[in-house]
Amino acid sequence: MKKPPLHRFLNKKSREATDTGFSNLASAQGSRLMESSGKFRVKRSGVRSLLSFSFAHELILMSWPRFLLVVLLFYVVVNTFFASLYYLGGMDQFMGGLAGTGLQAFSEAFFFSAQTLTTVGYGRINPSGFIANVLASAEALLGLMSFALVTGLLYGRFARPVVNMQYSENLLIAPYQDGMAMMLRLANARNNDLAEVEADVILSLLTEEGGRSIRKYFTLELERSRVTALPLTWTLVHAIRSESPLVEMNAANLIDLEAEILVTIKGFDTTFSQTVFSRHSYAADAFVWNARFLPCFHRSEDGIETILEMDKLSKYELLT
Amino acid sequence: MKKPPLHRFLNKKSREATDTGFSNLASAQGSRLMESSGKFRVKRSGVRSLLSFSFAHELILMSWPRFLLVVLLFYVVVNTFFASLYYLGGMDQFMGGLAGTGLQAFSEAFFFSAQTLTTVGYGRINPSGFIANVLASAEALLGLMSFALVTGLLYGRFARPVVNMQYSENLLIAPYQDGMAMMLRLANARNNDLAEVEADVILSLLTEEGGRSIRKYFTLELERSRVTALPLTWTLVHAIRSESPLVEMNAANLIDLEAEILVTIKGFDTTFSQTVFSRHSYAADAFVWNARFLPCFHRSEDGIETILEMDKLSKYELLT
Amino acid sequence: MKKPPLHRFLNKKSREATDTGFSNLASAQGSRLMESSGKFRVKRSGVRSLLSFSFAHELILMSWPRFLLVVLLFYVVVNTFFASLYYLGGMDQFMGGLAGTGLQAFSEAFFFSAQTLTTVGYGRINPSGFIANVLASAEALLGLMSFALVTGLLYGRFARPVVNMQYSENLLIAPYQDGMAMMLRLANARNNDLAEVEADVILSLLTEEGGRSIRKYFTLELERSRVTALPLTWTLVHAIRSESPLVEMNAANLIDLEAEILVTIKGFDTTFSQTVFSRHSYAADAFVWNARFLPCFHRSEDGIETILEMDKLSKYELLT
Amino acid sequence: MKKPPLHRFLNKKSREATDTGFSNLASAQGSRLMESSGKFRVKRSGVRSLLSFSFAHELILMSWPRFLLVVLLFYVVVNTFFASLYYLGGMDQFMGGLAGTGLQAFSEAFFFSAQTLTTVGYGRINPSGFIANVLASAEALLGLMSFALVTGLLYGRFARPVVNMQYSENLLIAPYQDGMAMMLRLANARNNDLAEVEADVILSLLTEEGGRSIRKYFTLELERSRVTALPLTWTLVHAIRSESPLVEMNAANLIDLEAEILVTIKGFDTTFSQTVFSRHSYAADAFVWNARFLPCFHRSEDGIETILEMDKLSKYELLT
Repeated sequence: MKKPPLHRFLNKKSREATDTGFSNLASAQGSRLMESSGKFRVKRSGVRSLLSFSFAHELILMSWPRFLLVVLLFYVVVNTFFASLYYLGGMDQFMGGLAGTGLQAFSEAFFFSAQTLTTVGYGRINPSGFIANVLASAEALLGLMSFALVTGLLYGRFARPVVNMQYSENLLIAPYQDGMAMMLRLANARNNDLAEVEADVILSLLTEEGGRSIRKYFTLELERSRVTALPLTWTLVHAIRSESPLVEMNAANLIDLEAEILVTIKGFDTTFSQTVFSRHSYAADAFVWNARFLPCFHRSEDGIETILEMDKLSKYELLT
Repeated sequence: MKKPPLHRFLNKKSREATDTGFSNLASAQGSRLMESSGKFRVKRSGVRSLLSFSFAHELILMSWPRFLLVVLLFYVVVNTFFASLYYLGGMDQFMGGLAGTGLQAFSEAFFFSAQTLTTVGYGRINPSGFIANVLASAEALLGLMSFALVTGLLYGRFARPVVNMQYSENLLIAPYQDGMAMMLRLANARNNDLAEVEADVILSLLTEEGGRSIRKYFTLELERSRVTALPLTWTLVHAIRSESPLVEMNAANLIDLEAEILVTIKGFDTTFSQTVFSRHSYAADAFVWNARFLPCFHRSEDGIETILEMDKLSKYELLT
Repeated sequence: MKKPPLHRFLNKKSREATDTGFSNLASAQGSRLMESSGKFRVKRSGVRSLLSFSFAHELILMSWPRFLLVVLLFYVVVNTFFASLYYLGGMDQFMGGLAGTGLQAFSEAFFFSAQTLTTVGYGRINPSGFIANVLASAEALLGLMSFALVTGLLYGRFARPVVNMQYSENLLIAPYQDGMAMMLRLANARNNDLAEVEADVILSLLTEEGGRSIRKYFTLELERSRVTALPLTWTLVHAIRSESPLVEMNAANLIDLEAEILVTIKGFDTTFSQTVFSRHSYAADAFVWNARFLPCFHRSEDGIETILEMDKLSKYELLT
Repeated sequence: MKKPPLHRFLNKKSREATDTGFSNLASAQGSRLMESSGKFRVKRSGVRSLLSFSFAHELILMSWPRFLLVVLLFYVVVNTFFASLYYLGGMDQFMGGLAGTGLQAFSEAFFFSAQTLTTVGYGRINPSGFIANVLASAEALLGLMSFALVTGLLYGRFARPVVNMQYSENLLIAPYQDGMAMMLRLANARNNDLAEVEADVILSLLTEEGGRSIRKYFTLELERSRVTALPLTWTLVHAIRSESPLVEMNAANLIDLEAEILVTIKGFDTTFSQTVFSRHSYAADAFVWNARFLPCFHRSEDGIETILEMDKLSKYELLT
């Protein structure tokens, strides 16, 4: 799909951003760089597997159900493995066993293994022979080590920075002061105190240069790009003045140029002493013209607190 | 309560702060934004519960007695649950039990459960049947996992940044150089070494614009807004010069305008390598005019150390 | 001891530093603000004890022998406590005991307690009565919790930022370019990679103003105050030019004025992703005039590595 | 090997960098400061051993196989030690033992020790005498403490910042705009999101001054030294303009002057909230003249994602 050249739309004063870290070669890229959730649509190939794969980090990042399943699977596999070893070593290496041979004996070996791996060690059935004792000593150590690992992983899961920044579903373009402005609204959905919050907004446009499909990036200057705290909402306002790349655009242009707005929010979570980042992306179809956000907080009934209604964050009204 | 328009008080040179992160729409807010302890008086509604709620973070942030109660409750509930399962599975699945059926048998199942969950596993009473063995294997794993969780949570509780910044109870407004200055005093109540400490002081005033109650914010410039270390006290001094929003105010004005002073202190705890934040708020009734702080440290008797008397931090004397 | 007024020594161009965080009221201070190790000589009094005291942080900061002693003490005390409870509850609440009553029975209760607290639970002696079972269940939980706590504390001890910056014992004042310069040398005694290392050097002088003993602070400008890495040594050089507070001083002046040099080094430990700080202080008697540091690294015999001789860090030669 | 004086090659506009942290005295240094992996070739001697050695940090930094070997060794040594104590204390201090004396009894003591250290405590063999009970109580505590330590160490291993920045094997010097430029390419080999990535490139040249071999450092200015994100590759471009130290150099000069390019990349890993650093070094023999990098990403077949081919990162073509 042939793209219009950008000079048809852009004011000469608009300066291309050179510090985005994204590439300009659009034909080599997927259709959109970032999902609206802020995740980059990039896959790595050809990495030597040991470099790209970190077992611990995978276990820290995977979902809770998946993580618990991995733990359960590990438990069953290790117990089956050791039960087989005990069984092969001979159940006469044990005292207190109730079964002879066969499935019952294997099941007894399995449960003995579980008692050893978890270090619960009831001891009714216990190793008396040399082989069983060596195996059980090894399994108990393995149990402790695995458990240490799980403890570390669980803490790693808690210690990860968590920010639940919520963004308005739409970007509004509406009258502002003497002209127009692009606005988007965000709020911290958690009660933790964020300090020194900074916003960075980049506009990406797809155009054509010398027959090649090229993606250009522009930093959109904000009326306020930093707040000292974020207890309520924050409306990011980009006034569309003469230097703005949006100055002579309309809704159709932006869709033609496959406009994408990339938002990066950085803040400091004072509760856990961590710098947190949040990214969000708006495609051209999320732009709404001539609208303004409705209020989304009010005074509590007792007059003391402010109630922030997170479900009204995206609410706007069209201006006539 | 109708508020006076701000231009009656404010010098034209006073510039409104635009980077505070607080909202101007006062009628939608609670009566005071921040408690004196620095906690924001904001409640979130309409958040999808899974976003606002993080079980682990709740457990890390709750008080110690509450946390221990949760652990104890968990212990009793899980043991009761498994005891019920064991009891339903039949006590003939166990060897070494002393009781037959009824309450005593249930109590025996309960204690067996506790021995399994904690992996203490004495083993006098121990599972011999298949069902009891499966249940006990599961419970021992659950015990290990829970314990891993508790370990992680306990560490999470220790690892949180801790700063016990103490503030003088009152703000003093007193002669300073050729004019007046607003002063407040603070000190680190702990012995840990804070480096690169920065202060940020914002004045909030409530006024009326176009019939609406509006809150305005002003950054108060400090004589010194950064210190390289904070071994003793630090007196924040805002000289009330011609650009200060306080330049022509008196005590009555400030109460009328519901003045609130929001203090944010940022520092780096070198002992635990964490950036720490402390916030504090003064309402207009905490302002004291024509007073000065009394010294709050002295040389130790052996002449070697400096003794910082934290309980004298708020002490001042009225000037006549 | 009456101090000479500072204007007798100081060049008019010397500007007092206003961002040190130290107080000027010298008569209220100990004789020296910082020990040469960089520890502030300040004690806090009058702090409400719960604020100044953090049990976990104490346990993280205390020495290893002390920490292990606390753990051992806890183990003995808790076991003695539970042994007493078991003993008072009656040893007939137990099965498998070998002793009757008296000291032997108490000792048996003590060892049963140890087996429960550590969850080793051999089970030869085991609780059969209700009271003993309740106590043992509680003790096993306490054991797990204590152990979780110890795990967290141990990790907290490892996770603390560690920097072993070594400083030359003496400050040298020696010819440099057209004039003189104050020099001190430092090096990282560990192999970890420090990045973005910054130095901040403050001179403190004790003088008299209006009959009061006053401490003044001056930031000493460095020829180079930041390095991108610190693999070898770093010599901090303050050229004593016309704006330097040291410009017309001699050795006797500095001792009279109780000169103290406070050095703060900040860096980023890339191995553990932590910002680390190191402070050091030199009293006037550590100043050496007309000397230069001797080299303290050389090429290894195979010509590949550079050998940094940490024990030569303080070595200098007098210039004639 | 006598080096040519640098003024023969360097443009007068080239300014030496003064903030590198490396030393100029080349004769005292190894042949190359940094390995291509970014590790400094510096060894410390004369450090008091307790300062340079941190047992915990060693255990956190060593390779996994080595770490597991240390744990296994510790397990065997401690068990052998306690087995010896139990054996010396007399096996009549135990109940439930099957062996009399000799090797079998020692082996039984060894396995009892393993059961105690891991707190598995089956209890068939169990301490009945005072000495054995004291020893077993101590060993169980030691076991718990060791395990707490291992847990902490394992987490310490996970918590370390990990960055797998990949660099092109060669530095290219090729036509750029009106002149030439030095280019090198890098990419993050992991899927974690790096924010605020900064690059710093230093050129080191070996020359002779006053008969001494001297190393000079120059910061190479980059067309773009900071990107807000690094989802794809980043080509660092140093345009060889009139102020560049490379302006009149050729391949032979650079080898004569033992040119070394030191690259430092700093970024923020948003997934784990850690600042990460990566260093890399290129020796003169890695420079390729008149070449350009080949593309190393392409659109996925479904048109949605961008595929980053890490194995093509170093691929270039010679220009004719």
